[in-house]
Amino acid sequence: MTAIGLDVANLSLVQAAEAVRQGEVSAVALLEACLANLDAHEEAVNATIWVDREGAFAAARAADTKHAAGGPIGSLHGLPLAHKDMYYQAGRLSTCGSAIRKDFVPSYSAMVIERLAAAGAYAFAGLNMAEFAQNGTGHNRHHGDCRNPWNLPYITGGSSSGSGAAVASRFTFAALGSDTGGSIRLPAAANGVSGIKPTQTRVSRYGVMPLSFSADNVGPLARTARDCARILSVIAGHDPRDPTSAEMPVPDYEAGLNGDLCGVRVGVPTTYFLDDVDAPVQAAFEASLAVLAGRGATLVPLKLPLMDAISTYASVVSRVEGATIHAEWMRKHPHDFATHINARLFASLAIPATYYVEALSRRGPILKAFATEVFGQVDLLVAPTIRICLPSIAATDVDNGPPGTEQVAMGISINTRPFNYLGLPSMSIPCGFDPNGLPIGLQISGRPFAEETVLKAADAYQRDTDWHQRRPAIPAA
Amino acid sequence: MTAIGLDVANLSLVQAAEAVRQGEVSAVALLEACLANLDAHEEAVNATIWVDREGAFAAARAADTKHAAGGPIGSLHGLPLAHKDMYYQAGRLSTCGSAIRKDFVPSYSAMVIERLAAAGAYAFAGLNMAEFAQNGTGHNRHHGDCRNPWNLPYITGGSSSGSGAAVASRFTFAALGSDTGGSIRLPAAANGVSGIKPTQTRVSRYGVMPLSFSADNVGPLARTARDCARILSVIAGHDPRDPTSAEMPVPDYEAGLNGDLCGVRVGVPTTYFLDDVDAPVQAAFEASLAVLAGRGATLVPLKLPLMDAISTYASVVSRVEGATIHAEWMRKHPHDFATHINARLFASLAIPATYYVEALSRRGPILKAFATEVFGQVDLLVAPTIRICLPSIAATDVDNGPPGTEQVAMGISINTRPFNYLGLPSMSIPCGFDPNGLPIGLQISGRPFAEETVLKAADAYQRDTDWHQRRPAIPAA
Repeated sequence: MTAIGLDVANLSLVQAAEAVRQGEVSAVALLEACLANLDAHEEAVNATIWVDREGAFAAARAADTKHAAGGPIGSLHGLPLAHKDMYYQAGRLSTCGSAIRKDFVPSYSAMVIERLAAAGAYAFAGLNMAEFAQNGTGHNRHHGDCRNPWNLPYITGGSSSGSGAAVASRFTFAALGSDTGGSIRLPAAANGVSGIKPTQTRVSRYGVMPLSFSADNVGPLARTARDCARILSVIAGHDPRDPTSAEMPVPDYEAGLNGDLCGVRVGVPTTYFLDDVDAPVQAAFEASLAVLAGRGATLVPLKLPLMDAISTYASVVSRVEGATIHAEWMRKHPHDFATHINARLFASLAIPATYYVEALSRRGPILKAFATEVFGQVDLLVAPTIRICLPSIAATDVDNGPPGTEQVAMGISINTRPFNYLGLPSMSIPCGFDPNGLPIGLQISGRPFAEETVLKAADAYQRDTDWHQRRPAIPAA
Repeated sequence: MTAIGLDVANLSLVQAAEAVRQGEVSAVALLEACLANLDAHEEAVNATIWVDREGAFAAARAADTKHAAGGPIGSLHGLPLAHKDMYYQAGRLSTCGSAIRKDFVPSYSAMVIERLAAAGAYAFAGLNMAEFAQNGTGHNRHHGDCRNPWNLPYITGGSSSGSGAAVASRFTFAALGSDTGGSIRLPAAANGVSGIKPTQTRVSRYGVMPLSFSADNVGPLARTARDCARILSVIAGHDPRDPTSAEMPVPDYEAGLNGDLCGVRVGVPTTYFLDDVDAPVQAAFEASLAVLAGRGATLVPLKLPLMDAISTYASVVSRVEGATIHAEWMRKHPHDFATHINARLFASLAIPATYYVEALSRRGPILKAFATEVFGQVDLLVAPTIRICLPSIAATDVDNGPPGTEQVAMGISINTRPFNYLGLPSMSIPCGFDPNGLPIGLQISGRPFAEETVLKAADAYQRDTDWHQRRPAIPAA
């Protein structure tokens, strides 16, 4: 324990990293603070699948020893992190939220895990997630549903449910999530944290459980846009072991965060993204526009092209690829999938190949049209991350709910999904609360490889708001 | 007319090019000789869809003028060529063998057309082909079936039917074909000419009618392996307008033709390729092995892995992509396709997307296994191009034949199709005749980008045989 005491877990990732660097707090103290929160609230939240306390303390002590010895340390030195349980770490469990891989111990580590370690961070837990990352709500039949720390009977969003809940609950300073249709942005929105899905190909997927190779993305959830910028600066970049990873240079994303949005044109959609939006979400969204404008941004109302096609193609691509990847298990272990996962996977077998090829073939032309018609006029596009006030876990329980439950569950991702098909960077930051005390998310999306602009707007917004600093008061389970 | 007279059309492409270069024959004389053969036999063979005599004479005269002026000329200077009617030439008809595009005049030219022109050749005719390149027999409901110059009631093979027939009939010195499942090699085999499908990505497909972007290839049919080498040296190489074209350097393919096969290990399959082979084909194949051995090659009997999976995946990929590409016409103009084309296209709509993704996903690993297990032991793989003695046009008329006709027609490409899935270079050269006087083809396939070795073996074989010099005695129609 340092003089700062248990509150160190309430620091942002960047604050905690700087405190370690300055010797104001030890790595061990950071870990103890996180574990104290975990001990207090994990029973209520159910955000973890496994926790390695012994390994964590060994890593924290090693970080402190290294720091005491002087010499260079990385930008995440001594930080305890926990990730969605699908980032392979050699010799460690990686359940992928499933029963089928409940004992899976990979022999190699994900590139992103290696890069975070090289920057000085270590992972101490595997976080809850939708089974094989295949729902947007956070339900999990095998490891238990993850519960929202702001209001326990409500969903956390998914598929990176534990990543959102653990960051909000101060179990960790940040967590990797993955995003194929919204799986970083949805739990970021639902748990009141910040999360970015980078441009498709921006981050290596080597050693990451695949779901849909055309739409999978790796990215961080953390408390602030600046935290996300720091992590993205570490994990982005080409990796020869993932030939699909882009060879574009990686900027220092933190360097661009100057709070100034003068000259930045922000597109406000007049179609699709605000259809049937709930009133509290609409109000929070409109208030957030004023904040951006207050920082100098120009708001540009914008009719968006082709949104229904984009949304449908996004589903076709990810469902087909997901069913192909899981085909062997579907044949051999159909009873080991949850019912709602099985329903999704088996229904996907009926999608005609020509439709899939059409979806992929039109991806380039549609992105081009979108680039011209949208990003020819604006630099960013904003929208509510989720159109509706968060539903309860019961109201979205597809396995046990009445007919129509799946539509509610699927509707969660309607505003996030298009950006996976388009491959564009897209971020969610907290922008308010609904009448149930549940967070509301603002989605900010940009041009390919324009993460800098997305992060700059998110950071500017957070300079004038404190939603991202609020902390849930978690009741006992 | 030169002193050489009409016989100049019987020269090989390389001989004709050298005769022009040496001033022994004029470009106009070459053209006149080709047109004389066309006038004599086109009614019987039906190899062309359009002929531009006026344009051809203008091009031939311009070539002669340029030659007379001295200065550098290209390796194909003054040669009249004719191509499968799917190589776009700005302002010229390009029917794709269809009714739907019977009046299609593209506004731009294929890269291969531009390169052939830069080397001094010109195109004077569009050649018959299967409708949208979608059968292996040469049937065409709209432009008439192409007939085999060696025995008119028999098939020419397809889909580059006119390319094979026109080269054999001495209407042209060479012709571009395209090969998605065997469409260069089949008509080469059936018409007693030489044709090479290069490695996938070796030749730009810019401006070429697409059928299956994963399996389409551009290549030449000509009288000799040396002719093919000369054309391939002109057309191979990267093209920025076709981003899928490989950036590998292009060798001078003719330079490697030295007749020496010492040290070349030739794999002789003991599985798949010789299953249910007809006796005359087997005999011709065995005799050709002795010729290769006589040139120094080592014959290596070889069990091939995964052939049934490869053959099936090859069909899945090309059928799905073909149906996707034609989807709009299938909706709007279903009655403008021939019945057998419709049957193929519409049946392809029922192929599940997961099967297609599986086929593509396994392509890399299967090629790797093939590279290790086959090309770890040998340099080349030989097989009969077509397993059976050529059937008649009537016996393979799917639109009008009894049940089972489609199986006969589909069986034509059973030995060629795997190399499209594997993406390997594969060539057919004439190696004998069946009891009906119809040619038999020897297929020689190699490692990725090993066209040099394939061509060297084919050329060595042709130094000791004269099948490629034989000329059909075409009766009147």
